[in-house]
Amino acid sequence: MNVDETKIEELVSELTLEEKIAMIHGEGIFQTAGVKRLGIPPLKMSDGPMGVRKEFALKDWTNVGTTDDQVSYLPSNSALAATWNKDIAYKTGQVLGAEARGRGKDVILAPGINIKRSPLCGRNFEYMSEDPKLIEELVVPLIQGIQENDVAACVKHFAANNQETKRLWVDTYMDERTLREIYFPGFYAAIHQGESFTLMGAYNLLYGEHCSQSKFLLTKVLREEWEYDGAVISDWGAVHDTKQAALSGLDIEMSVGPDFDNYYMAKPLYNAVMNGEIEEAYIDTKIRNILRTMYRIKMLGDDRENRNTGTYNDMKHREIILEGARESIILLKNEEDRLPIKKKGLKSIAVIGQNAERVHSDGGGSAEIKALYEISPLLGLKMKLGGNVDIKYAKGYYVPTKEEKEHNWQQHSIEREKELTEEEAKELEKKKQLVLEEINRQGELLLKEAVELAKESDEVIIIGGLDHEYDVEGQDRTDMELPYYQDRLIEEILKVNPKAVVVIMAGSPVEMNRWSDKAKAIVWCWYAGMEGGTALAEVLLGDMNPCGKLPETFPKYLNDSPAHKIGEFGDLNSITYKEGVFVGYRYYDTYDIETEFCFGHGLSYTTFEYQDLNVSVKEINKNDLKVMVEVIIKNTGAMDGAEVVQVYVADKEASIERPIHELKGFSKVFIKAGEEKKVVIILNKNAFGFYDVTSKCFKAEAGEFELRIGSSSRDIRFTKSIELKNSYLYI
Amino acid sequence: MNVDETKIEELVSELTLEEKIAMIHGEGIFQTAGVKRLGIPPLKMSDGPMGVRKEFALKDWTNVGTTDDQVSYLPSNSALAATWNKDIAYKTGQVLGAEARGRGKDVILAPGINIKRSPLCGRNFEYMSEDPKLIEELVVPLIQGIQENDVAACVKHFAANNQETKRLWVDTYMDERTLREIYFPGFYAAIHQGESFTLMGAYNLLYGEHCSQSKFLLTKVLREEWEYDGAVISDWGAVHDTKQAALSGLDIEMSVGPDFDNYYMAKPLYNAVMNGEIEEAYIDTKIRNILRTMYRIKMLGDDRENRNTGTYNDMKHREIILEGARESIILLKNEEDRLPIKKKGLKSIAVIGQNAERVHSDGGGSAEIKALYEISPLLGLKMKLGGNVDIKYAKGYYVPTKEEKEHNWQQHSIEREKELTEEEAKELEKKKQLVLEEINRQGELLLKEAVELAKESDEVIIIGGLDHEYDVEGQDRTDMELPYYQDRLIEEILKVNPKAVVVIMAGSPVEMNRWSDKAKAIVWCWYAGMEGGTALAEVLLGDMNPCGKLPETFPKYLNDSPAHKIGEFGDLNSITYKEGVFVGYRYYDTYDIETEFCFGHGLSYTTFEYQDLNVSVKEINKNDLKVMVEVIIKNTGAMDGAEVVQVYVADKEASIERPIHELKGFSKVFIKAGEEKKVVIILNKNAFGFYDVTSKCFKAEAGEFELRIGSSSRDIRFTKSIELKNSYLYI
Repeated sequence: MNVDETKIEELVSELTLEEKIAMIHGEGIFQTAGVKRLGIPPLKMSDGPMGVRKEFALKDWTNVGTTDDQVSYLPSNSALAATWNKDIAYKTGQVLGAEARGRGKDVILAPGINIKRSPLCGRNFEYMSEDPKLIEELVVPLIQGIQENDVAACVKHFAANNQETKRLWVDTYMDERTLREIYFPGFYAAIHQGESFTLMGAYNLLYGEHCSQSKFLLTKVLREEWEYDGAVISDWGAVHDTKQAALSGLDIEMSVGPDFDNYYMAKPLYNAVMNGEIEEAYIDTKIRNILRTMYRIKMLGDDRENRNTGTYNDMKHREIILEGARESIILLKNEEDRLPIKKKGLKSIAVIGQNAERVHSDGGGSAEIKALYEISPLLGLKMKLGGNVDIKYAKGYYVPTKEEKEHNWQQHSIEREKELTEEEAKELEKKKQLVLEEINRQGELLLKEAVELAKESDEVIIIGGLDHEYDVEGQDRTDMELPYYQDRLIEEILKVNPKAVVVIMAGSPVEMNRWSDKAKAIVWCWYAGMEGGTALAEVLLGDMNPCGKLPETFPKYLNDSPAHKIGEFGDLNSITYKEGVFVGYRYYDTYDIETEFCFGHGLSYTTFEYQDLNVSVKEINKNDLKVMVEVIIKNTGAMDGAEVVQVYVADKEASIERPIHELKGFSKVFIKAGEEKKVVIILNKNAFGFYDVTSKCFKAEAGEFELRIGSSSRDIRFTKSIELKNSYLYI
Repeated sequence: MNVDETKIEELVSELTLEEKIAMIHGEGIFQTAGVKRLGIPPLKMSDGPMGVRKEFALKDWTNVGTTDDQVSYLPSNSALAATWNKDIAYKTGQVLGAEARGRGKDVILAPGINIKRSPLCGRNFEYMSEDPKLIEELVVPLIQGIQENDVAACVKHFAANNQETKRLWVDTYMDERTLREIYFPGFYAAIHQGESFTLMGAYNLLYGEHCSQSKFLLTKVLREEWEYDGAVISDWGAVHDTKQAALSGLDIEMSVGPDFDNYYMAKPLYNAVMNGEIEEAYIDTKIRNILRTMYRIKMLGDDRENRNTGTYNDMKHREIILEGARESIILLKNEEDRLPIKKKGLKSIAVIGQNAERVHSDGGGSAEIKALYEISPLLGLKMKLGGNVDIKYAKGYYVPTKEEKEHNWQQHSIEREKELTEEEAKELEKKKQLVLEEINRQGELLLKEAVELAKESDEVIIIGGLDHEYDVEGQDRTDMELPYYQDRLIEEILKVNPKAVVVIMAGSPVEMNRWSDKAKAIVWCWYAGMEGGTALAEVLLGDMNPCGKLPETFPKYLNDSPAHKIGEFGDLNSITYKEGVFVGYRYYDTYDIETEFCFGHGLSYTTFEYQDLNVSVKEINKNDLKVMVEVIIKNTGAMDGAEVVQVYVADKEASIERPIHELKGFSKVFIKAGEEKKVVIILNKNAFGFYDVTSKCFKAEAGEFELRIGSSSRDIRFTKSIELKNSYLYI
């Protein structure tokens, strides 16, 4: 979005160095200083991706809200990605932007789009996918929706922030092709097509540089190659050096402590400029980026009067949130048409598992919010089934109390510090055993109660999964198992009631191999916002036909995951992404690894037939290359529903090792029962290349490509070969 | 609603005495016992009028809910009455019924329609009006809406339950004409036009009999005269004698304790029947009424399969609730067009007073609920104003903590028991002084802060009033003053900022005489449900044109109130309603007492002109008497809005003392700016009579009647005399 640069230059020339310095670092936990003299307001920022975070004091983390910072609770990005629906992404963005602006914010610190490299990353729930194309297609409308409200999106975390363990200090390495093909495209789309007004640097290091002050990332790639002129904001506390930060493409240093004057880009930078160590011109560039952003969101200039006011908790917001939640739910398995539950004649139903009643909006780290309300699955089921059905609920598994949890954590932390005498260690170990015994005792009781209930019930729904003790900022999971002995619960329930439906609510994959072959029906729902429980109930009861698709592969075992099997992950000072471009299905499908559920998978209560594939290639010159894929999709079942048609491209004659196929297009289409629709998906020149490290750009090689059209990466209904006549390069 | 009585007789003949006894008293806090053998389920009841109360254990008051008993929070009956909108009453009933049925209830213990005799009654917020006609018109659609959901309404509390002080023991006296003209009509309409399937007896005594076992009320009036065949339920713990209860028209005894077998209508009644003291036929009649009710709500018979399932927390419910809240708000005063607040150019606004942020849904006694959410006025204003306006909030007044309050209460209670030595009393008095000093100190600080804020703010909105420490079941207020020294706050704010708007949120009148002449704008809002704060913000900001009208008179001073000036009220064993029929405006208008705001009053942001009155009388015979009042209402202002056209009838030649006029018809009409509509209000034979104690029915006397058509009881725009040619009687 173009801005009158002469006005910016005028302001830059009028600002004193002190004023400039005040504008480029936090003067509050979530805002910079303004310059009253020149009518420049402070830049007010807020977390987060699932709704505008609760209000804190200006200078510290004191919660100052009454009840007026309650907000709408939006589906997480993982849920959003599972909709594969660009329109929902756009409308969700509109809601988030309106609520941020309504709460008086200038920048909303979202969306998070890091690649889901490992199932264990604690922030996976905040991210979209393992696939850059799916991210690109959804992040663009999401950002556009946000920014319509005169509030800046802040796409994050640039780049390669794929684990939480040692997140401030882990140094990340990968080959350049991998960085360009897998980890960059989402960001490139976000700032070019999405025009994200701001971008957040990551905590971790890449190639030895802290990302939030990285010359490579922020100057060379972002500013020089990608010509980004928006504002770059550091993650909170991600800056570690005054000079590096000043000389990089970073514009604003934010952090978590109250000693604002001593931030790296505060007094230390002022002094360095005064001493002649750093040229003021570097500061001026940052100021230009910040002022440009302010003009874009109408904080400055004549447009101020027309700035969007925003609003929050609007009833229409909840409708959009419900729509998103509905389309995010994935029917993973449904043998013998186990689902939907037949309401006719239904007298009673047993709901087992604490996620049925657990509230999630208040957790997760910076994604936490003070939700106006949150409808749990149990509440959703009760609301939808009404008074004629008796719903019996059993907790099923035991969630340790805060004290029990802390005890174990202290134990762990003290052991690591190795400060204990042998005797003290023994004493502590004894205490830990007692706590564990109590936890187990409670668990046994709840298990027994649940099994009894399941025995005597016709209909049983188990609702388990993770929560924000596991899907959480700042720590990764240590394994991919369901916590709280849920595997055992599910197995025992299925033994006494093989018809029991399993619902997993989580933000990242869990191992299901102990019971997935025994369960007739498995449903996946995410942290899907304030109406998540309503949406889940609608799907279970057949009021809504599920249409979500997996935006990531669910491996059978953690050790199948390429980040763990081939690459490195976790508690290391330096991590090398040895798996290269073979992330997610690019690995599983290429090496034919059995998965629990493959990328793009998701069932429906109806069936879709793919008919009449037609592919036409227009290749006027390399820039106008267009491959038009047309296919007729017929809803051959008895219920209206939606299908996501996916187009994968396989390079049959590549000169280098490429994944067996890559997603290059998709379209979600709603079709009434018995009706059919023509779906058109256009692939352009970007659909065929790989990053060529020699020519330093993408390269599509002449030769045969196979288009694979299907319902998931492993449910290909048609293939069609096309020939690229000439090789070509592109950025 | 007719039911196949042969089926009822079959069941009665099959039931044993033990089974019958189990059906006519509580076997749980909120349910009776069923008879499994014959397929008769227990009857499940729930409070309350503002939403379905949270879930309790079956046999005691333990809160057993997880989060699945969160419900929609509806406008109180006082708010509903202020809408003067029958359609809203109907839709609100639909919501309450759907939520009750959705929560699995058979009977919802609502609506409460007792006459607002005194401003001090603690449950006034749960009741509708001081006027029987307004109650009649609203209670009928409300009950119809509820019962559409196959759940029974339970109109309460029959009768003359007009104070909370000594509510279980106070004996009430009034002349028969007063009972028939003022206190009965709402109940008569509720069971005849509304067909309320159940009715709740009151706690208090009337003419020496406990209402819930009163032969006069329940047998003579309800069963014999009014031919009521629904189920009569006692208030909880309102039965005091086995024989009286058994022989009265009562069907189900409910109470608060867990000793169910020893309820008056449990074992003691069983024994009395076995001993021959009470004929079993009395029990059979009760069983018939209960079974009839069960058939009506499809708990029995072939219709069971078609019984409504209900639903709760539905998004549509919130829209209806918002609509009700919007129309309930009353613009009491608006000098110099102070309101609406002009949003154009508005930069900041100060909100003062703790009711701005206070949540009310969880209080009030049996009307408490676990609301899914509740939008406070402060949240509503922030949501609606959005991010371009800076909203500053100051608490303004100090609300004592629970401990501080308890201390004072203990003090009071201990003193009354007179158990203290002089020394102990002194000690306690000293402690009380300390607490009071602390309360005052806190209050001073908050007052000072608020005054400072008001000084420096262009726009100031004070949001005060009562809360459920005052508007509460079980106790009456001791005076009509605003608590927490709010009068002083308002006066001080108005001194430094005479433009400050005053909003009072309360369920019953408060004295405003210290500042009402100084404030330019006064807005009244009730406990108006989960979207109350949204509605208030819309009205203040002009997004909604206020259209509520007072359903009761707001006197200037408590001592002007007829219940206090003429009658008796409060801490007495026996109360005589010496004011007779002169309740509310019937008193104030007849005796020309200056009021703060009169009955039917409510301003608009637009103006309405009354034109072309046309009255036609059809009197074919006395039963077909129809007086058609036609008037053109023109919206002469610049904003769309609604007017409530009110028709009062004055009997100019009555043989007895009658009120100067009485409301006999009204119509709410929405008119776009500049447009006009014809309003037609039909008065029938019931509009002209008084209760004639000699003939034991209503009597309309031949002679002149004046029709007064206006915008409130004291803003009459047209009068028109008509002549009744013949006297006639009616029931």
